[in-house]
Order: sequence, then C-alpha cells, then structure tokens
Amino acid sequence: MDEPALRQLLDDVASGTCPPDDALRQLRRLPFADIGFARVDHHRLLRQGLPEAVYGPGKTAEQCAAIVVELLSGGGGPVLLTRARPEQVTAALAAAAELGEEGGRVVQPGELATVIWRPAPRRAGRVVVISAGTADLPVAEECAAVLDALGLPPHVLADCGAAGVHRLLSVGDELAQADAIVVVAGMEGALATVVGGLTPAPVVAVPTSVGYGSAFEGVTALLAMLSSCAAGVTVVGIDNGFGAACAVARLLP
Amino acid sequence: MDEPALRQLLDDVASGTCPPDDALRQLRRLPFADIGFARVDHHRLLRQGLPEAVYGPGKTAEQCAAIVVELLSGGGGPVLLTRARPEQVTAALAAAAELGEEGGRVVQPGELATVIWRPAPRRAGRVVVISAGTADLPVAEECAAVLDALGLPPHVLADCGAAGVHRLLSVGDELAQADAIVVVAGMEGALATVVGGLTPAPVVAVPTSVGYGSAFEGVTALLAMLSSCAAGVTVVGIDNGFGAACAVARLLP
Amino acid sequence: MDEPALRQLLDDVASGTCPPDDALRQLRRLPFADIGFARVDHHRLLRQGLPEAVYGPGKTAEQCAAIVVELLSGGGGPVLLTRARPEQVTAALAAAAELGEEGGRVVQPGELATVIWRPAPRRAGRVVVISAGTADLPVAEECAAVLDALGLPPHVLADCGAAGVHRLLSVGDELAQADAIVVVAGMEGALATVVGGLTPAPVVAVPTSVGYGSAFEGVTALLAMLSSCAAGVTVVGIDNGFGAACAVARLLP
Amino acid sequence: MDEPALRQLLDDVASGTCPPDDALRQLRRLPFADIGFARVDHHRLLRQGLPEAVYGPGKTAEQCAAIVVELLSGGGGPVLLTRARPEQVTAALAAAAELGEEGGRVVQPGELATVIWRPAPRRAGRVVVISAGTADLPVAEECAAVLDALGLPPHVLADCGAAGVHRLLSVGDELAQADAIVVVAGMEGALATVVGGLTPAPVVAVPTSVGYGSAFEGVTALLAMLSSCAAGVTVVGIDNGFGAACAVARLLP
Amino acid sequence: MDEPALRQLLDDVASGTCPPDDALRQLRRLPFADIGFARVDHHRLLRQGLPEAVYGPGKTAEQCAAIVVELLSGGGGPVLLTRARPEQVTAALAAAAELGEEGGRVVQPGELATVIWRPAPRRAGRVVVISAGTADLPVAEECAAVLDALGLPPHVLADCGAAGVHRLLSVGDELAQADAIVVVAGMEGALATVVGGLTPAPVVAVPTSVGYGSAFEGVTALLAMLSSCAAGVTVVGIDNGFGAACAVARLLP
Amino acid sequence: MDEPALRQLLDDVASGTCPPDDALRQLRRLPFADIGFARVDHHRLLRQGLPEAVYGPGKTAEQCAAIVVELLSGGGGPVLLTRARPEQVTAALAAAAELGEEGGRVVQPGELATVIWRPAPRRAGRVVVISAGTADLPVAEECAAVLDALGLPPHVLADCGAAGVHRLLSVGDELAQADAIVVVAGMEGALATVVGGLTPAPVVAVPTSVGYGSAFEGVTALLAMLSSCAAGVTVVGIDNGFGAACAVARLLP
Amino acid sequence: MDEPALRQLLDDVASGTCPPDDALRQLRRLPFADIGFARVDHHRLLRQGLPEAVYGPGKTAEQCAAIVVELLSGGGGPVLLTRARPEQVTAALAAAAELGEEGGRVVQPGELATVIWRPAPRRAGRVVVISAGTADLPVAEECAAVLDALGLPPHVLADCGAAGVHRLLSVGDELAQADAIVVVAGMEGALATVVGGLTPAPVVAVPTSVGYGSAFEGVTALLAMLSSCAAGVTVVGIDNGFGAACAVARLLP
Amino acid sequence: MDEPALRQLLDDVASGTCPPDDALRQLRRLPFADIGFARVDHHRLLRQGLPEAVYGPGKTAEQCAAIVVELLSGGGGPVLLTRARPEQVTAALAAAAELGEEGGRVVQPGELATVIWRPAPRRAGRVVVISAGTADLPVAEECAAVLDALGLPPHVLADCGAAGVHRLLSVGDELAQADAIVVVAGMEGALATVVGGLTPAPVVAVPTSVGYGSAFEGVTALLAMLSSCAAGVTVVGIDNGFGAACAVARLLP
Repeated sequence: MDEPALRQLLDDVASGTCPPDDALRQLRRLPFADIGFARVDHHRLLRQGLPEAVYGPGKTAEQCAAIVVELLSGGGGPVLLTRARPEQVTAALAAAAELGEEGGRVVQPGELATVIWRPAPRRAGRVVVISAGTADLPVAEECAAVLDALGLPPHVLADCGAAGVHRLLSVGDELAQADAIVVVAGMEGALATVVGGLTPAPVVAVPTSVGYGSAFEGVTALLAMLSSCAAGVTVVGIDNGFGAACAVARLLP
Repeated sequence: MDEPALRQLLDDVASGTCPPDDALRQLRRLPFADIGFARVDHHRLLRQGLPEAVYGPGKTAEQCAAIVVELLSGGGGPVLLTRARPEQVTAALAAAAELGEEGGRVVQPGELATVIWRPAPRRAGRVVVISAGTADLPVAEECAAVLDALGLPPHVLADCGAAGVHRLLSVGDELAQADAIVVVAGMEGALATVVGGLTPAPVVAVPTSVGYGSAFEGVTALLAMLSSCAAGVTVVGIDNGFGAACAVARLLP
Repeated sequence: MDEPALRQLLDDVASGTCPPDDALRQLRRLPFADIGFARVDHHRLLRQGLPEAVYGPGKTAEQCAAIVVELLSGGGGPVLLTRARPEQVTAALAAAAELGEEGGRVVQPGELATVIWRPAPRRAGRVVVISAGTADLPVAEECAAVLDALGLPPHVLADCGAAGVHRLLSVGDELAQADAIVVVAGMEGALATVVGGLTPAPVVAVPTSVGYGSAFEGVTALLAMLSSCAAGVTVVGIDNGFGAACAVARLLP
Repeated sequence: MDEPALRQLLDDVASGTCPPDDALRQLRRLPFADIGFARVDHHRLLRQGLPEAVYGPGKTAEQCAAIVVELLSGGGGPVLLTRARPEQVTAALAAAAELGEEGGRVVQPGELATVIWRPAPRRAGRVVVISAGTADLPVAEECAAVLDALGLPPHVLADCGAAGVHRLLSVGDELAQADAIVVVAGMEGALATVVGGLTPAPVVAVPTSVGYGSAFEGVTALLAMLSSCAAGVTVVGIDNGFGAACAVARLLP
Repeated sequence: MDEPALRQLLDDVASGTCPPDDALRQLRRLPFADIGFARVDHHRLLRQGLPEAVYGPGKTAEQCAAIVVELLSGGGGPVLLTRARPEQVTAALAAAAELGEEGGRVVQPGELATVIWRPAPRRAGRVVVISAGTADLPVAEECAAVLDALGLPPHVLADCGAAGVHRLLSVGDELAQADAIVVVAGMEGALATVVGGLTPAPVVAVPTSVGYGSAFEGVTALLAMLSSCAAGVTVVGIDNGFGAACAVARLLP
Repeated sequence: MDEPALRQLLDDVASGTCPPDDALRQLRRLPFADIGFARVDHHRLLRQGLPEAVYGPGKTAEQCAAIVVELLSGGGGPVLLTRARPEQVTAALAAAAELGEEGGRVVQPGELATVIWRPAPRRAGRVVVISAGTADLPVAEECAAVLDALGLPPHVLADCGAAGVHRLLSVGDELAQADAIVVVAGMEGALATVVGGLTPAPVVAVPTSVGYGSAFEGVTALLAMLSSCAAGVTVVGIDNGFGAACAVARLLP
Repeated sequence: MDEPALRQLLDDVASGTCPPDDALRQLRRLPFADIGFARVDHHRLLRQGLPEAVYGPGKTAEQCAAIVVELLSGGGGPVLLTRARPEQVTAALAAAAELGEEGGRVVQPGELATVIWRPAPRRAGRVVVISAGTADLPVAEECAAVLDALGLPPHVLADCGAAGVHRLLSVGDELAQADAIVVVAGMEGALATVVGGLTPAPVVAVPTSVGYGSAFEGVTALLAMLSSCAAGVTVVGIDNGFGAACAVARLLP
Repeated sequence: MDEPALRQLLDDVASGTCPPDDALRQLRRLPFADIGFARVDHHRLLRQGLPEAVYGPGKTAEQCAAIVVELLSGGGGPVLLTRARPEQVTAALAAAAELGEEGGRVVQPGELATVIWRPAPRRAGRVVVISAGTADLPVAEECAAVLDALGLPPHVLADCGAAGVHRLLSVGDELAQADAIVVVAGMEGALATVVGGLTPAPVVAVPTSVGYGSAFEGVTALLAMLSSCAAGVTVVGIDNGFGAACAVARLLP
C-alpha cells in the first residue's frame, strides 16, 4: 500500500465511504499470504522490482512446491526456484503444471538447478557475465539464468582469468559496450580488479568457492574483491550468482 | 589509445605519414606520467569515468603534493586527496595554489580529511546516503564528499538505525525517490537489509568499523551485509566511503 | 543438599542422632547416579529448574537408552533426548517403554529428532518463537519442542525475515503481548535487531547455520546478533534452539 | 503512535474533526527529533522499556552534549551517556546543567565513564553482578551503573573466578536468592558455566577483553560462554556491560 | 649415537682400531631404517622415552602394515597404530602375526581404533583421565589406551562436566591422589579450569571437537584451555588423546 | 605476438604488404582457442615457460577431455591433467588416443590422479622433493609428477620430519647438492625451517592438509612456513604440489 | 578446609564443643579475604602448590598494592606481582616495605616487570628455559623469574632458533640433563618440535608474539606448537611465561 | 665444520696429531659466538649463502650494537641491521665505527631503517622489484636495500597496480628481461597474478599491510597471492621485503 493508496483510503474514511474499522483492517492487511511455514510476498515485484525467488536448501520438496504454487497464483511476474535439488525441481514443476503453468524452464539441471516460470519480457541493457575459469561456470550460469528471468539475458564470457591478460583484452570490445558487468571468479579473484580497471561500467563481483587450500572456499576471493584497487567495484556473497543478477536488475534503469 | 586512434595510427603508417619506428614508439607510450614514486594516470577519467584519487595513508606529505600537482596539470577533471593527515592537506593545498588551483575544498578536516579540486559539474541522479548511527557519520561524510566531487551531491540521512524502524520509515519517501542508495552502518549492519527490502533502487552497503567487541572492527557488519536476505544488495570494503561513491558513479547513467 | 538440609544434618550430629562418620559420608554423597560412561544428574530440576537432556551426538544408541532409563527412574520431571539419530530414538523409546514409560513424543522425526517424556504441566507465560525463513524452521521447531516439554508451548511465527518489514509488522500484536521472544535467524540475522527494537520483552536470539558462502555456517548471524544495536538482546550458540528454550524457562517467573 | 491513537485519528477523520491531509501528516510524524546528526528517540522508554543511551565513541563532545540535552528535554525517564571520554562528560554535564538538570552522576570517571541523569525509581528484583577477576571490574561497574539507572541496583561480587571454586561457593546464598545474574568474565570465561550450573535464575554472560595472548581480546571468553554446557546461559557482546544491564531490565517483570 | 659412543669411536680411531673412513661412515649411519615411503625410527624409545606410533590417516593399509612390521622387528618396546581404519587394523594385525607377534590389542574398534603390541611394563604413577561428557569418551579412551601401552594404566572418570560442580567434587579424592591428570573436554572446556584450581598435580588439557555451532570443532575449548585462569595448565591439540598420553609419560619420573 | 613480430607487422603495413584492416585484425588475434566453456592457451609455454595444465575439479569429464584435445592439437609441449577423478582420466585418455596421442601416463591413480602427455625432455638441474611424513606423500608425488613432465625428475625423500633431526641430517649430502628443494610438510611444518637453515639452495615450501585438530587443514603449516626464521624460504598454497613444481621450473635456468 | 579439618569440625559438633550454628558459619567461611575488589586466596599454595600471583594489567596501582599487602600478611610463601607497570611496582614495593617486607626483587624492570617477595627455597629439579631469538628473551625472563620465585632457578639458553640447528646441538648436553624444558619461541615456533624430538624430558612450549605479518602476534607459533609432530609437547598461552613456570612447578615432584 | 674438515680432523686423530679429547672438544665447538643474549652465527654466509641480519624489533639498542659488532668481527661478508628504530641505528653505527667500520649505509631512515655494512660485490642477475602502489614503497625499498647488500641491486618499478593494466604493460620489456621478479602489493595483491601470467621468470610475491578495512593488514593480499591462478608464483610473509630478497639470492645461480 503506497502513499496514493493511503491518501485514497483516508479520503474514503473522510467521505464516509469507508468506515474507520474497515480502514483499520485494511491498514493492517499486508500483501502476503501466510501458508503456515512461509509468508509468501505477492508485492515484492512492486516494492523491490525483483521477483520472489524460492531458495531451495533447507526446504522440503513439498514446501518448495507449495510456495511456487502460491507465487504463481499471485501475479504475473517471474517466479524462480533456485539451488534446487532434483526432487524439489520435480515437485515444483508438477505442482505448477497442475496450475496450468507448464513452462518451467530448468537451467543447469543436476544438484543445483534453477527453475524459471514466466520470465520477464526483454528489458534494455547489455549485461556481460565474465568468469575466470571453467570451474566458475556453474555460478556464472546461475547468474545468467536469473538475469534471463529478469529480462536481461547476458553475454557470458568464460575462462578469462587474469593470469592470461591477453584472453581478457580480446574481449575488450564486449566489456566496453556493457551497461553492467558481473565478474565471477574464485581463487584470488584478480579478474575483478583487472576488469574494474578497464571499464567505467558498474562491476558486480561474485567470489566463488573454486580453488583448494588457501582459497578457503571463496574467502580469499571475497576479501580480494572487497579490497580491490579498482575503485567502485562492488561485491556480493560467495557463490551468490543470484544476488549479483538482482543487483544488476536494481541498477539498470 | 582507443581503437579509432589505433586505426588512425595504422592508416598513417600505411600512408607513410608515420614511419614504423614512430608508430612502435607511440604504441608503447602510455597515458600516464612517471614521477619516480608514482605513475600518475591522466586517462582514468576517460577509461573508468572516475577521477584519480590520491589515497593519503602510507605516503609522505611531499609525495601527496607532487601527485596532486601532476594530476592538476594533466586535465580538467576532478582531483581528490582522501584520508589525508593535516600535513598532507597543507602540503597539497600549497602546491596546488602555486599552480594557480586555489579552490581545494577540505571536507571533514581533522585526522581523515578529503580534499577536492575542480569538482565535476552536477550530473543527473538522486543519491541518498543513509547512515545507522552518529558514529558512522565520518564514513558517510567521506562518501558524500566524493559524490560531490563526482557531480552527484547526495542527500545524507543520519542516525536511522534498524533498531528504530520508525525512524527509517519516516524517510521512506526519500528512499523511494532515490536513484541510488548508499547504506553506511557498523555494528550488525542490519540497516542494509531493511533498506534493501523497502526499495527497488540499487543499494551499495558500506560496513563501518563502528562498535566494539563483537563488532570486530567492521567484520561483523561486512559479513552481515554480504549475507543480507534482501536480494541484490552489494557491498564494498570496511569504511570504504570512497569506494561506495565510485560505485554509485559507475551505475548512474 | 541445600542449606536447610545441611542445618538438619548438623543438628542431627549435635543431638547424637547421626554419628560424625555418617555425616561425613552424607556430605560426600552426591545427587547423581554413576552408570559408568555417564553420571546422571537426578537433582538438576531442583538445582537449575531445567530437566536433564540427553544430547545425542557422540553417544551410541545404547548409551542414549541407558541414560534415558536412568533419568526416567529418577524422578517425575520431564526427560528429553535431543539431536537424536533414528537408531537412538528407537533404542530410547523401546527402553523407556520397558520401564512403562510409553508416552515418548518424537518431534521432527528424521535426522535430528527431539524426544520428550513426561512434559511439564503448563506454566504461565506467553512465549513467541519467530523465525526469519522457512529454512530456519528446524531450529525453531527444536526450540518449540523443548519449550513444550518445559510447560511453555510457544506461538511459532515462521518466515518473518527483516527484508520484508511489512511481514514483521503484521505480527506486531503477537510480539507486543509476548512475555519472552525467541528470534531464530540465519544469514545476516537482522531480525533480532528489528524485533528487539519493537518490543520491551526479553529477546533471546538464536543464530542458525542457514545460508551459504558468506553466512559461514551461522558465524555471520552470531556476530550480528551479538553486535545488535537493539539494546538488551541476548544470544545463544549457533543452531542452539535447545539453549534458547532453557534460557526462556530460566527467565519466566 | 500506538493502535488506540491510530483508531482515534481515524475516528477524527471520519467525524471530520481531522482533515485527511492533517491525518496523513500525523501518520508520518514520528516520535523522534531530528537534530541533524542524530534522530533522538523520545519514545524508546515506552517502546522498549529502556532509556535512550548516548554511546560516546565516535561522537564529538558537542554531539554528545546536544543529544543529552534533547533527551533531557523530551521526557522524564533516565538518560545515560556511556563510554564517555572526559571532554564528553564535561560538555554533557555543562549542557545539562544549563537546562536545570544538575544531578548527572558520573560513574567510574576516567577513560570510560558512564553518566546518569534522572535514574529510574527502584524496581523490584534482586540482581547480582558477579565478576571473575579484579580486571573485569570496569565492565562489571558499567553494568552496575546502568542497572542503577534502570532502578535495579545490583549486588556486585568481585573476583570469584572459577579456578577458586571455593570462593564461588561462598557466595552461593547470594546467587540462590538472585532473580537475575550477570556473569562478567574474561580469559576462558568458565565462571558462566559454573554459575549457570548452580542456579535456576536467568544468567546473562558478558565476555570481557581481559587476558592476553590466547584470550584474543575477549573472543575466547565469548566463544566459551556461547558453548557453555550449562543450559540456558545467554550471552551479550564483548565488554558489553551496558547490554547485559538492558537484558536484565527486559527480563525482570 | 650418544657421547660415550662418540668418545669410543674416536679412541678407536686414535688407536688405529678403526680407520678414519670407517669412522666417517659410522658417524653418518643413523638409527633408522629406510623402507622407501617411511624412515622407521628404531631409537625413539631411547631418545624420547616414547614408542614410535604409526598414525593411520593418510597411509594405505599396506604402508601401515609395513611400518608396524619394521618397528616390531626393531626392538622390544611398545608399538602402536593409532586412528586406524578397519582395513588398516586388519592388515597390521595380520602382518604382525606372520612375524610371530600375535598379541596386538585393538582398543575402541571402529572408525578410529588404536592397536597396541608389546605394552610396556607397569610404571609407577597414578594417572587420572577425566572427561566432561559422554561424547568426549572416544578421545579419553584413546588417551587411556596409549597410557596403557606406556605402562601407565589410568583411572578414567567420565561425565564430570563443570556445569555440575558437585559431580566433580565427588571425585575430589581421586584427583587429590593423582600424580598427573588429563582433562578431556569439548564445548567450553571449563573443566580444565575447575580441575586445575583444585589440585597441585600437573594437568594436561585435551580440547575435543565435541559440541556444535559455536564450539567450532574444538577451537572454543582449545582457546579456553589456553586462557585458563588456573595457572600452569598445559594444553595439547584438539582431540589429541595420544599427545596427552605422551606428555604424561614425559613428565612422570 | 612479441615485439619483433609487431615490428614486422608494422613494416608490412608500411610497405603495403599488409593492409591496415588486416593488421588490425591480427593485432586483435590472440593466441588461444575459444571452445565455448574454455579459452585454451596455446602460447603459455612460450610466455611462461610452463605447460597449460587442466585442473580437474569443477569440470565435467567431457570438458576435461575437450580441453586436453585442444591442447594436444596446439603444439608440441607437455600437457597435464591434474587432480583428476577416474572418469575424467578415462575420458581424457580416450579422447587423446583418438588423436593419436596414446602415451598419457597416469600418476598416482585414484581420487586425485595426474596425467601427463608429451613430457618435456630432461633439463639440467638437480631437484629434491623432501616430505615430512608418509601422509604427505600424495602431495609430494603430485609435485614430482609435474616436475617429471617439465623435464626435471626429482629425487623424492620421504618421512624426514623435523622431530627426528637425525633422519634429516642423514640426507644432508643430497640436500647440499640440490639446485632446488621442495619441502612438503603438514602439521607444524617445521621441516621447512630446518631445511632452510641447512642449505643455500632455493627452498619452496608446500604446506599440506595433513594432521587433525589444531593443524586446521594445513593453515598451521602454511602460517608457520610463511613465518619461518630461515630467511628466504618461499611458500605456495596448501597441498599445491603442482604450484611448487612450476615454481621450481621458473627458477632453474 | 580439608577433609581432616572437616572431620574435626564434625567431631566437635558431636561432642558439643561446637554448636551447630557455629559449625554452619565455619563451613561457610572460606580461606580467602574479601578486600572489596578482590578475594585474596590465602590457601592457594596448599591447594595448588602455587603462590597467588597478582596480574597487573587492568588493575590500578592501589589495587595491586592492596592485594600484595593482603597476600604478604597471609602466610609465608612466595608472592608475585607480574606484568606490572612502573607505577604498580612502586606502589606495591612501598606498601610491602611498610609491612616490613623490604625484599621485593624487581625482574626486568620497565614496561612489564615481575616483582618477587619471599622466594621459595631451592627445590630439586634441573629446569632449562630455551628461547629461539633474542626478541623472545622478555618472555623467557618472565618465566625464569617465576621459576626462581618457586625455588626452581632455571638455566636460560638464548637464541637457539631452529634455523641454526647446530646452535641447538651445541646445547645438547644441557637439554639431555634437564628434568623439564620450557621452549620459548615466536615466528613459526619450530624450536619446540626440534627440542621435543631430542629429549625424553617434559617440554612446555610458550609461543611468543615475536615476529610480524604472518606471525599474527603469536597465533602462528601457537598453532604450530599444538600441531607439533614431536609427541607429548604441551603448550601454554601466547607470551605466557608465567603459566609455563607454574606448569613446571606442577610437574616436578 | 663441513665434511672435508671433519675428514681432516679424523685423519689428525688417526695420525696422533690430535688427541681424541681435543677432537671431541672441536666436534662440539660450533661456528657461533655466544654473547649471552645471542648466539652469533659466523658461518651463515657459508652455509646458507646469506648474511646474518640483525632484526631490530624486540631488541634493545645495546643488543643490536653488540650483535653487529660481533658479526663485523667475524668475517668479511655483508652485515645488516633491519627494521631498526633510530636509537638502534645510532648505537649500531657508533659501535661499528669504533671497530673501524665507518661505512654503514642507512636506507630509508626513519621508523624502519635498514643499515648495511660491507655490501657484497655485484653478482650477475637482473632483478626487478615491482610494487603496486606508492604506499607499498617502504617494503619494496627494504627489499631493494637487502638485494643491494647481497650484490644484486634491483630495478625498482613503482606504482604499477593491476587496476591500470596499461601501466604494467609499459614495463613489459623490463619484466621480460628479468632473471627474477619480486612483486610487492597490498590490498588485493592482484599484481602478482598479472605479472606471473606475463613472464617465465621466477616471481616472489610479498603481500603488504597496505590498505584498510577488508585488506586486514595484509591477510587479503597474502591469501590472494597464495591462491594465484598464475602457476608457480611463490610467496613470503606479510611485509617481508627482507625475506623476498633472500629468496632471490637463493635462486639466482
């Protein structure tokens, strides 16, 4: 309930159209549905410009399916299921299909799938997702899938690690034309710095848990990206391709 | 040297206007000036859309002054000296004045001043810098000063911590109209989550070293912001008001 | 042996009813039973107001069953088996049944069950357990089960994360009427701060290991809750729903 | 603005007593005063049962004085200035005196003073603050001072470390009669466990930064208290005597 | 080769009994056997008073068996295989039996067995191994097994955690008579402090990885024990029951 | 494209042999092949003196095979597949064989195999790989396999831990004659210091994740090696036998 | 009050010599003096075999002096003031002198002095304190001073770091004859391993905060010593020379 | 005493030239001088190819001077005093001058000076020290000073951070011709990766404590360098310019 609606409500009370008790009730009514184990937010798209995404881990397959159904019932925007295990995917697809929503697209099927229903229409904005190594691809793919769902299908550039600067320079044109760049890198995460130094575009860095030993499951890349000497690089959590996609959706006009 | 210039150079070689040896020399010439202890970058504004900022800590007052002079000699964009100690400020202001650049503005004089010469003209974009507590103000002020220098004077909202949600709701209109929001918070950094949940605008979170004991000099706020359940919040390093301002400059069109 | 009992003992010695050697022996006799691998505490209920709980991990199924049997033999108060694996549950239920204690209630059967025998009668006190996300529910349920056993069945409010402040405000009445609130949250744990700022009731915060990457298995939420800018919020260990329930039992009159 | 007030406002709009525009304005008016660098909360006492405390570090002496003045102007409850440096104390006392509030009491004058104006009247409830070593006393004293201000003057028991269990047993009666116990301990913080095992009262543990080397500025005591095998012990941040006092104020009826 | 042997060697050279080249060769000969993947130390018993123990993890079953065989061939002292997986135990027992060493005793068979051949004869010294909880028993048992092998069969006291001080006081006599005490505790490890405060005997503390969440796999207990306010408590690594037993063997005369 | 080639290209443009557009295209052409999920670097051998190694973890078997094929097609130098799971080994060997490259040598078959095709010819330089315990051997073997592939077959000395200094002294001659030494050690990593103190040769230390509890998966050895009081010891990441071998290849002339 | 005394008390009650109320009072009377900010333990020497030491940091000079006076009044054993700042030393010496205890010996005067009154008579036992570098000497000296006070004047061997193994071997005889060895080392702490491997004596390792950068204020040495591959080495906290001395006093018969 | 000397000694014993007792004494005599608080190593140059350097911190000015004097008396090689405070420099220069060694050169006078006596003659080998920012220069200068002393005066390239890749490419020729490269960088340390990817030379990376907040005093750069995706980069401790210089001295032939 935004301000014009609040104003309208009060006008209605003033004019007698709406009795005070009703107004009180309405002021309390909130834009979500309580389905017991979850409070499903039907207005997040309006409030944040982002779809509600169901994060799989820690939920049962039944809970995933029920939340997806509630969301699909609620409005017309995109609905996502992320980091889903196969049984969660199956349950959610089946439940959605019963509702008549057949078109769930499964990205990167396997242990950590993303499922998309009702992707948003294409928005303006050239987005590049660039990753350092082949092992960073799953996170980059999650990010790309979410961007797709948000109407921002990105160009994915794989295997451009900073140790081979010439590979990076070869994609200079694509970087130069991007309206937003997501850098996905594990190990020492130096790619964020080098890309940040080459372009005036907004750069969202995603540290990944790729690497072993001193990479410390992504902590090294995380700290390195936060300390980047390329000014104005921003960072999201480790392996958080979803968050980076949302950040891009926020910043593109 | 961008691609059209490279093309021109090669055309000149082809036409004989430029002998190969000269071209080779030019291809090697890079847009910075080597002043011994620093390589001053005169093209950063073009390449990154950001001014070169001289970071005070670890430099002598003489080094600060010399780099500022070199930068002021180089072009017409803004020049900044950040995190400067008083003797660095004095030396830089004096050296700039000799050059005829009298107008260095000192923000937050004291231990960690920012000095701005030749601020950029006003750009479009409403920016809000919101901070959690009074003790977070120095970082918020640094961020605001850099935004000023970049042509993006922000609205600063102080003392809006998440423990008093009503204080935050009272500034809801200002948040709703912002094109970009910088959240500055120490302790547990919950303000980033609450703001991120209220607005579709891009949110850049700056953890501060405010708090004692379990705040661990900003680590707690940093981790909390990176793990925010408000999707799409991005984070810069601890106390890095400068970085947040640059991130905003990157993302505004 | 409390002070009146000690006084009585000394009176008995003084009056000759009790020879010194017997008194010495009694002073040494302690209120527990040594069953080899455990010293079962039959007086904890009196001393701490809390039942002895058998913590499953690291014990064999046989050990769990034997301790449960010893406890059930000892007095009339509640007995709990927590974080129990299926084979531990089975063994303990069977052993208890042999003893004539049929009514063990299994909460949240699966990998981390809680089993309750002889729950305490209903005590006064309205307790709310509020959790941030659906994935935090298992910890919230453990906490609720232990509160149940202690005579304090709580109201559980699920999925009230701080990124959707309006969901939280919708449960404002329930928070306002609570005598004690347990906040269960992972990721950045901001819910503790927002709830702590809304209510004068005691707030016990339980960080959970929910979240990935920068949530660091609950460390982020733990540190955030300890650094909360809402004054007077207290914290228990990561995923320690049991401890939070005991803390509530201590603080309700 | 609580619910009855909201109901009244809506009634006034319905009856025409209050035009909608006025109601809108009132709905937006929030119970704090914006003094530029701070938003002073005049209703915290009502909302949280806790006074607003001005936390000294990171604020100028002028800022401290101005916030104290604003708070003293606002209502009749206690006002605190905590962790104040001498110049902050002096400025705040002087500003308060100008307002006619002469009675600021300075506790533990020196580097980290607490100043109290208008302490609350004596509330029911026996509180014990027990500390492990003499070096933990400053944190225990801060806690005691805040409890004093909240109407809960505690009994302070100093130097009862767990390595001398007999010293602890000697204060057993006082522990047994307490309605709430604050345990203040650095080094390995074992006192929290031993006290927690002896009493059914609520125990709030405050780790201190006392100790050197492996005490890691309080981290060791913090982790130990969070992992205490005495069930139901709760913990606040390192050296946070203020927070422990507020927690006690929350939990006493 | 100790000093008298060196003296003898030089005397032999002086007298012509031993040509210089032979002496040089002998000076280089060292008391171990190189079996390719291991250099088996036949003189450790003499040099350190400790048997060579084969640490299972990271070795193949064949390697374990071969090293055990080499050690059994070498002298008369005790030989141990620790932290052994079942296939390592089987292989080592079989290989030893072929050698005629039938008597390998397997302690705590399962995932982390200890196998002992040729235990040392009973030495003087009363050793107590005291553990905090039932879950700490496997580490306590490993320690006891190694003490057995070294001729120092200990008295094991289980489940004496510091939260139930009276359980601890009940074993006061046994502690008072001990020549050395090993304290095995996880969680917050407070038992080391309480025991250390009750007795003048040497106390070797073993932190265990027992506990979850904030126990951090034994780090909390480790730090707490290192910071113990009971002076003169010493500590070995997490779960290192073997090391504690060796420490006791070193310190008993 | 090195400088002479650049000079030649410009000469060709100057002479008209090469039209500017072609030159531009060539300047952009980079020495790698883009196979979708990877950019295969055919000139690394020239640029870094090191072969391209395919790091197995995080890649599918198909991706491993495809990259190996691309590399084998590209030039004549050594090709490595490291940390490969069995299905990756199988797929890569088969794909290579189809290409006519039958000779892939599998080192340390099992969970973490190294596969080598076309090992480099023997280079000058005596390299010693010395490891502290038998459990460190897998890392030492990986290092040795990579050195083999680079033409530097090392001498491997196993089980020379610092607690048995005499075992180390016995290999003094081999250390004295080495041109480079790799020290592989877990636990406390003291071997690096002792070796570093005995020899003037370059010492590359590899911390391993061997040890339990306080060894913290190699962090302890890593920190110890970085803090070694033997001057000039250098360190690579935890378990990074591959990196140590490459470091040796860089430093031998 | 030990067991015979308790027996006597009960006999007195039985015989009527002591009325029950008096006995109760005596049972409560504990062997310490409460001087307000400290509970001075007059029986620690009997209970732990260790003198009470006053730890300077966190105490005022007056508090130090008062506790020293109380201790000197209490019995005949040694009294120590450790880690004392100059004003603490001065105040304590003066207060002791007023009491007639002139002989306070100040060791290592300066920022971290140790003061000893009434050192214990010489006990049997050869103790060696060996330190790695000259910068470790202050910790070694503190340890030696406390050993002196306890009647165990040690032999201090300075600058025997593990990088120069020959320096260590030169003191082999002294190590071989020691009944207990304290190893004091910072940086990587390898000395503990090498010494532990050379001798069967008990080895107490003290990590020091010597070193910079990756030595992490002693954490590196601490972890290394805890992970030592020399079995049976025990460890005390960082820079805890006092604790190591007490550990030695515990373990010598 | 190396092997030929040992052989000679034994020959002398065999021939009667040297009585066994003398030989024994000589075998014990080690190549250092014990000056009480230090054992000065006169043969390090021979054994390690490195001069003995006196590390200032933790030593008194008198200790520094005495060790320098002992070293200058001992042989002809270079002597260094590192990380010296002004009073240490003054004392050491004076003491050396008394000895007739006037030529101590003070590099980077101020808080952390290096002093060099008797620098080694110029050795072959082109060394480049490249640093990321001006604030990294003190560490780079320390490294350069030590290289100078070792006969390897390096080329220092300042301010070549990875965010301005073109600045780095401009020094490509110098990198290409180097026999060894030291990379000095703080913040995220990405320079090590980029340099490591451009050159086949040995690269020794020195993380510096430059940067604030998330740079964590050099830990971020340290971890990033250890995890570098440029194979074969080695790392020394934080700010350890001295160690990097020694590493270079070891690896150049």
